[in-house]
Amino acid sequence: MRQMALSSLSFLSRIPPPTFYHHYHYYYYRCSGLSSAAAAAAAVLSRWWCARQLSSNPPTQPFSLQRFQNKQFYHPYNSHYSSYISTKQKQEQGGGNKSRKMAMFPSTGQIIRCKAAVAWEAGKPLVIEEVEVAPPQKMEVRLQILYTSLCHTDVYFWEAKGQTPVFPRILGHEAGGIVESVGEGVTDLQPGDHVLPVFTGECKECRHCKSEESNMCDLLRINTDRGVMLSDGKTRFSINGKPIYHFVGTSTFSEYTVVHVGCVAKINPKAPLDKVCVLSCGISTGLGATLNVAKPRKGSTVAIFGLGAVGLAAAEGARIAGASRIIGIDLNANRFDEAKKFGVTEFVNPKDYDKPVQQVIADMTDGGVDRSVECTGNVNAMISAFECVHDGWGVAVLVGVPNKDDSFKTHPMNLLNERTLKGTFFGNYKPRTDLPSVVEKYMNKELELEKFITHEVPFSEINKAFEYMLRGEGIRCIIHMGA
Amino acid sequence: MRQMALSSLSFLSRIPPPTFYHHYHYYYYRCSGLSSAAAAAAAVLSRWWCARQLSSNPPTQPFSLQRFQNKQFYHPYNSHYSSYISTKQKQEQGGGNKSRKMAMFPSTGQIIRCKAAVAWEAGKPLVIEEVEVAPPQKMEVRLQILYTSLCHTDVYFWEAKGQTPVFPRILGHEAGGIVESVGEGVTDLQPGDHVLPVFTGECKECRHCKSEESNMCDLLRINTDRGVMLSDGKTRFSINGKPIYHFVGTSTFSEYTVVHVGCVAKINPKAPLDKVCVLSCGISTGLGATLNVAKPRKGSTVAIFGLGAVGLAAAEGARIAGASRIIGIDLNANRFDEAKKFGVTEFVNPKDYDKPVQQVIADMTDGGVDRSVECTGNVNAMISAFECVHDGWGVAVLVGVPNKDDSFKTHPMNLLNERTLKGTFFGNYKPRTDLPSVVEKYMNKELELEKFITHEVPFSEINKAFEYMLRGEGIRCIIHMGA
Repeated sequence: MRQMALSSLSFLSRIPPPTFYHHYHYYYYRCSGLSSAAAAAAAVLSRWWCARQLSSNPPTQPFSLQRFQNKQFYHPYNSHYSSYISTKQKQEQGGGNKSRKMAMFPSTGQIIRCKAAVAWEAGKPLVIEEVEVAPPQKMEVRLQILYTSLCHTDVYFWEAKGQTPVFPRILGHEAGGIVESVGEGVTDLQPGDHVLPVFTGECKECRHCKSEESNMCDLLRINTDRGVMLSDGKTRFSINGKPIYHFVGTSTFSEYTVVHVGCVAKINPKAPLDKVCVLSCGISTGLGATLNVAKPRKGSTVAIFGLGAVGLAAAEGARIAGASRIIGIDLNANRFDEAKKFGVTEFVNPKDYDKPVQQVIADMTDGGVDRSVECTGNVNAMISAFECVHDGWGVAVLVGVPNKDDSFKTHPMNLLNERTLKGTFFGNYKPRTDLPSVVEKYMNKELELEKFITHEVPFSEINKAFEYMLRGEGIRCIIHMGA
Repeated sequence: MRQMALSSLSFLSRIPPPTFYHHYHYYYYRCSGLSSAAAAAAAVLSRWWCARQLSSNPPTQPFSLQRFQNKQFYHPYNSHYSSYISTKQKQEQGGGNKSRKMAMFPSTGQIIRCKAAVAWEAGKPLVIEEVEVAPPQKMEVRLQILYTSLCHTDVYFWEAKGQTPVFPRILGHEAGGIVESVGEGVTDLQPGDHVLPVFTGECKECRHCKSEESNMCDLLRINTDRGVMLSDGKTRFSINGKPIYHFVGTSTFSEYTVVHVGCVAKINPKAPLDKVCVLSCGISTGLGATLNVAKPRKGSTVAIFGLGAVGLAAAEGARIAGASRIIGIDLNANRFDEAKKFGVTEFVNPKDYDKPVQQVIADMTDGGVDRSVECTGNVNAMISAFECVHDGWGVAVLVGVPNKDDSFKTHPMNLLNERTLKGTFFGNYKPRTDLPSVVEKYMNKELELEKFITHEVPFSEINKAFEYMLRGEGIRCIIHMGA
């Protein structure tokens, strides 16, 4: 009886948020498995809810997100819509009505006006602007971004120190969203799909994509200088007709963005986008560096250089792999407490020793660790990470991006004694092929993402996320686009 | 009929060489599968042969080898004896007579006097001397060396430039032989086993031996400075009571030598020792560098730096793996013709270009080779070998031994673009565990060893082998110990 009651209550949680498209509610509920009468009742309730919400919180764009209680965010194209699509696909397989899908997206082929955080110039706070987002062209998709997070790379290109500046620009590359519409030639994705946009791509045609060993797609490999789309060299963003540039093909600091289909990973629609959005970049990079490249065996010892987000994700990978000792190395001793949550068992601050840190680690581990992962980008840390692995079987993996004039130096005997030195890009994950399985690692509780999320801010306060990162506070700040 | 005649003639080839132990000949032939009458006839023929040989060429030690026509060398403990042992083992399993085995080795526990080529001082021709070889101590075996070959490492330590000289010394570490007797605690080997002594060992107890990833045994790893046995710090060689030092635990330039059991690979007794002896060092090193470490896939491109014996063995590995293009790089253009036999399809002489050789190779291969193997020991070649592999999946393997003060330098981005840099020692083969399977690769005609053997000399002319190597002539010179 109690169970039945809960089941009835859970019905309430299926009520969709208000939109301009009330007349579809009945169909949502029908396709979500409700009886005809229940669907009608839900639709009425929904209309009442919409009216109440609209009066106090008018939407600024067609598919706006609305905030619910308890910091939960809903959207008509979120879980309800995916059920709808799923049921619809089944209907179509059985000869159902295809027209209904398109009816769901009156914006298809139209310019969408929405909010975006524009970086007008280097180092200046972003400004929330109303931008125009053009429809996706050939092999492009337009995404509604629901959640985005701030990664150090955004800050680096926002600061634009020593770079050719590309402004005005919409930054952002870690995000979760939903496909709003697709351009010509896109067959892998359809409106409603839950996706993670990724700063690097997988065209599935080039030698890299066809190689089992590489994820460095020739066509869609990261290009931080390009501010336009590949197909026509133009931007899809504009303000009053003036172009606003893209960033690494994603530009997720916008409620809508246009991305090449090869840079979009379709994921389990049940995955909470406010959590898995962090898998778009840094967390997958660190995790994959350990799981895909270093590949520590159960019971092995792993050293992690740098306990920022990527390093902690590398530690998380070592924890998942069953490492017996995970030694964290960082110049900031305050990071050790946080790092313990990610499986780090020991901490080494190089400043505390008067001998090279590789020697410290070798002394701690009877000759060296089995695996090391370097996540700082400092070339001396790279050399230490390599020289601290055990001869015979040690593998060092470089993740951090070095400076332009750096030189990695070591005595060749360190290699000849059967050490391996590798580098990785995005944790060797192929974005489209592999990211869905990383999401599944989270879904089956193997990978713990919650502990990476230390801050959350509404979109309107996106500059706070920059402040947290500049102060070195926390790991990931989730930016709620609808808030 | 013709076949029968040939079969009868082949009987003659089974006649053993003369020894002091004529009375065993009948047993050899019986155990080799001949009928009682045929065995008796063979024994008579053998005795006649022995008498003739002895009158013209008296043996200097109990188990001397004698030269036959057509440069074929035989020995009572070679193929005939292995058949004997094999049959005997079967008899023993069925309760046969165990005493016969010991009767075969009257030298067990005794000092053996035999010929050895002694290096009295650096760079001076070796001198064939009569040496005393003490019985094997705990965990040691005494081997009769039938064939040995000269490797550049012997020459390097004979020249002893810039080293702490260890003289007088018996060099040599590539060889094939037969176990004469075993010391206390040796259970894996028994007299008559066909073996390859190896300059590095496998104790099967240390962390390296227990690791699937390493072959760098803690106990028996190569030690070029040590001239004595591990168990008691003494030599087993002497001349009139004065010690003659060992070399890398093998000292195969002697008709008999004493080796730690961990440095002895027991191989298929049917394998011709005058061919497989070259697998003790250089050939396995190059072959394993490709097959075990670089692991090129079928159809891939491979660059080999240095077309000496090790480099050609690396090319042979690439040929076996089915590489579609094998690019040989060497400063000596004369080596290309020889290299073609080993599968090398293209040749690059860095002297012919005014751009770095890594750029030449990248231009030839649309961005780089899939795998490279560096077999020169020159640090610039190492850097080129690394930088010429393709991003995304390229693997470079370092084999050549560098100078003491060398420094390997590269920009870290070369690594971050998903290149791998590895070093290897003895081709990552574990001597005892893996060498038997390399011998089988030769036996099943996958691996072609004959083309490595360009010269053969009798033991008495061992200095000629040094001359060939110093002049850069040929690849491997086999030294026939009994000649």
